[in-house]
Amino acid sequence: MDLKQVAKDTAKVLASYLTYQSVRIVVAQLSETNPAQAIWLNDFSTKNKIQDGEAYIDELLRENQDLGFRIMTVREYLAHDVTEFLPEMVCTGIQQANMEHRRQHLERITQLNWSVSTSHPEASIDSEPNLDNLSS
Amino acid sequence: MDLKQVAKDTAKVLASYLTYQSVRIVVAQLSETNPAQAIWLNDFSTKNKIQDGEAYIDELLRENQDLGFRIMTVREYLAHDVTEFLPEMVCTGIQQANMEHRRQHLERITQLNWSVSTSHPEASIDSEPNLDNLSS
Repeated sequence: MDLKQVAKDTAKVLASYLTYQSVRIVVAQLSETNPAQAIWLNDFSTKNKIQDGEAYIDELLRENQDLGFRIMTVREYLAHDVTEFLPEMVCTGIQQANMEHRRQHLERITQLNWSVSTSHPEASIDSEPNLDNLSS
Repeated sequence: MDLKQVAKDTAKVLASYLTYQSVRIVVAQLSETNPAQAIWLNDFSTKNKIQDGEAYIDELLRENQDLGFRIMTVREYLAHDVTEFLPEMVCTGIQQANMEHRRQHLERITQLNWSVSTSHPEASIDSEPNLDNLSS
């Protein structure tokens, strides 16, 4: 398991995701102050794939340098203010989600066993002693 | 700008991405120890969208509980070992990428001005004094 490579790939995906969030923030701001430009940026962002944040910014700078610089500023700000909380949030989030999956799975297989044991009593695991035998 | 919501959404995306990385790791491990199961897991992962990590795990647990638990363990491990480096990596990565975009953009517009000034001298900003006038 190449942890260093996983960390590098994850950081790249995260940077692209923060670029996407910055675009959403700027579109929301523009829709209040300059609706025409908000529509333009929205159109541009659906045409130019935002999955690769760097290629997106590069293309945007060629079309509209002011918006390009604005989104770059917002994503730098987001990187500072959001990422510091992520390690804790992601660790706790995954731990809790895992626990919930285990709980649900246990519930599911218990219910399955229960429904099997009630519909086909002969196939059930003996959970109660057979009292008939005792009385005979 | 709702930073709290951005952080929550980002953490969710990150958890799903780490689930995807865990699947890749487990597929790689299985291809050494149990190639048939590696192919099965690969097929399962292309059919069941991994964008939503929780829905993916839920589905996998119903089909193959051992693999489901294994991937859950790997992603918990990744969350611990990878996320602590992310804030620094993402901040530095975005700062450097922004600097590089600014540099390239500056280079591009300087070159544009240069090519405009050489192909249409009349449209250029006077960067040098007109020596012809001096001599006349």
